Amino acid sequence: MDIKKEALKLHKDKQGKISIASKVQVKNSKDLSLVYTPGVAEPCKEIYMDNELAYQYTSKGNLVAVVTDGSAVLGLGDIGALASMPVMEGKAVLFKEFGGIDAFPICLNTKDVDEIVKTVINISPTFGGINLEDISAPRCFEIEEKLKNVLDIPVFHDDQHGTAVVVFAALINALKIVNKKLKDVKAVINGAGAAGIAIAKLLIKAGINDVIMCDRMGIIYEGRQDADTSKIAIAKITNKNKLTGALKDALIGADIFIGVSAPGIINSEMVKTMAKDAIVFAMANPVPEIYPDEAREGGAKIIGTGRSDFPNQINNVLAFPGIFRGALEVRAKEINEEMKIMASYAIAGLVSDNELSEEYIIPKAFDKKVAVNVACSTAKAAMESGVAKIKIDINKLKEKMESN
Amino acid sequence: MDIKKEALKLHKDKQGKISIASKVQVKNSKDLSLVYTPGVAEPCKEIYMDNELAYQYTSKGNLVAVVTDGSAVLGLGDIGALASMPVMEGKAVLFKEFGGIDAFPICLNTKDVDEIVKTVINISPTFGGINLEDISAPRCFEIEEKLKNVLDIPVFHDDQHGTAVVVFAALINALKIVNKKLKDVKAVINGAGAAGIAIAKLLIKAGINDVIMCDRMGIIYEGRQDADTSKIAIAKITNKNKLTGALKDALIGADIFIGVSAPGIINSEMVKTMAKDAIVFAMANPVPEIYPDEAREGGAKIIGTGRSDFPNQINNVLAFPGIFRGALEVRAKEINEEMKIMASYAIAGLVSDNELSEEYIIPKAFDKKVAVNVACSTAKAAMESGVAKIKIDINKLKEKMESN
Repeated sequence: MDIKKEALKLHKDKQGKISIASKVQVKNSKDLSLVYTPGVAEPCKEIYMDNELAYQYTSKGNLVAVVTDGSAVLGLGDIGALASMPVMEGKAVLFKEFGGIDAFPICLNTKDVDEIVKTVINISPTFGGINLEDISAPRCFEIEEKLKNVLDIPVFHDDQHGTAVVVFAALINALKIVNKKLKDVKAVINGAGAAGIAIAKLLIKAGINDVIMCDRMGIIYEGRQDADTSKIAIAKITNKNKLTGALKDALIGADIFIGVSAPGIINSEMVKTMAKDAIVFAMANPVPEIYPDEAREGGAKIIGTGRSDFPNQINNVLAFPGIFRGALEVRAKEINEEMKIMASYAIAGLVSDNELSEEYIIPKAFDKKVAVNVACSTAKAAMESGVAKIKIDINKLKEKMESN
Repeated sequence: MDIKKEALKLHKDKQGKISIASKVQVKNSKDLSLVYTPGVAEPCKEIYMDNELAYQYTSKGNLVAVVTDGSAVLGLGDIGALASMPVMEGKAVLFKEFGGIDAFPICLNTKDVDEIVKTVINISPTFGGINLEDISAPRCFEIEEKLKNVLDIPVFHDDQHGTAVVVFAALINALKIVNKKLKDVKAVINGAGAAGIAIAKLLIKAGINDVIMCDRMGIIYEGRQDADTSKIAIAKITNKNKLTGALKDALIGADIFIGVSAPGIINSEMVKTMAKDAIVFAMANPVPEIYPDEAREGGAKIIGTGRSDFPNQINNVLAFPGIFRGALEVRAKEINEEMKIMASYAIAGLVSDNELSEEYIIPKAFDKKVAVNVACSTAKAAMESGVAKIKIDINKLKEKMESN
């Protein structure tokens, strides 16, 4: 059976992928009096007196909403709330499997920015964190910013930040191999959607001085006629040499190409114009911006894609479960740049110097150590950067996660 | 350990009562490709083409939102969204235990009627049904009505309709014992909140001609100066003899007293003025409107309360799991009066003529046959009254539920 048929069969046989489980039993009147009335009134009263106790007496502290409006689902585009449900359930399954987090799909019947924001704020008491998913750019930026301004629980748009964290992790190790320093390299990002913009911001924050962004219209520069405010904003912090022209012009002399765009957008001739020991991350799915063999033909030294059937798969699952685990453990008010950067170093650090090679710059998705390492680093960075509401012992978190 | 301490300890030890479980495993790349990308795109595309397929490929069909604004929680009153979470999780546990339903708490950060309505509509794609919980009257009536007008999934305010269904079930059997007919009896309901209003409506629909409602100000009659539109509306369909006065005046000659109000509101002297073989359901919790021994002293023949430590406990758990199970199985667009009345008869029918006695008019909460019977009757009534989107074989539903 091919994968399409098998996937349909699996979803149909199970009627979806998640269910609600009870942590308690209700087999007799005594159980009922503890789980429900009259006993349940006690934790209610405690939380009423001190809202923070919701983390102690309820599931809130481990619940994450996976929120979408179905406007940018996988490669499928704007398929709407209902049709996006299988992806959101899948995400919930990954949250549980890799991070031990109880994630729940919230598929929204509206695409209006303010209504999405209001809805998420309204339902937020139930949750310890909000994971935005598959919301199209530039609306996703505005929604995330507005929510972060109001909510005191972490809000994280995985298509942006999860991707950026994993790309940067791969880059840390790739640069070790080619022996180049962050501050010296020139990086070209093609695709100025959610992922591209977030990658650019994180790379700049992490120390890369020369980042150039391109979209369908070519290089993004200050003063270009853009309607999209996210592009106007990114133009201000990228492209320090004020280049203009097409993607091929940007690539000349570049050390790094990062594609979060469309199939076949670059070819080996363009890779040949890049600097020596070029790094090419071609992450369009399922067909990358350039296939690995073609990139190698153009002289690329290190090549990554989004696919599991090539070496160096750049996969969000390496980041979001551990990042949320760490943030939830310390009740972080937000997931800030420091936490994301430390998460990248945590992922990169799992590839030892011995193992590190052109074909192995990033751990495999099923390496259980990844989420543990990421959670510990994220929690530590949250405490150190002052966004953690409680302090925890990182070694105990490590032990707890390793014993699961 | 007393129940209060034990309940607190249980909630703390478990950090809440629900978690999200995966119905699928993700142990390797193959699993990942089925549960997530690229395989997950297939059910998405199918649902995009035909929205009804969400019931086939996702968890929607078995997911119920337990929605509250925390404004009328147990006897605690308006404790807010966060503090109501333990009750909503408890409800979710009962949905699972008694109905096999995956219910999820949605605790809302707003008490504005229109915002609640909009929020629930916005999140509705995820769910197969909406259970409204612990929302204060008269807002609850408006919220429910607005949601029912817009949504094509069942919306059910359990404090209203669950209570009404179980009260009517108890009444069916009580009337058998005292050998009186629905059409002939006079029923007095004290308490004109969510439960009281819904009980009145259901009893009238079920065939009782003489229903009198009382609140703190006494008998409700047409023309009384009420600001509350729900009271103005109920005055039009109750109190056919246009009585005025206090609760004690209403009780003279009444066959039935139903209290959903406050402790100690009636005494044995008042019960003495009721008709022969009076039925007294005193459901204020934990202290009833009148204790059973006092009611008996006043001549009451059949007495029910909300408590498990007296005979004839009138408990919502007898109704909502089966009602939702039945409604979900046939994808009912709503839960109508026919379904509720049939649910009451299903509950009442589980007490055989042999077992029926003054001290046993209603099944026990832990009788597993209740949910099965209620679900089958509700599903059947939904199909017969034209609100079922699909037809099912009731015998197969019975077999399925009994085998669980």
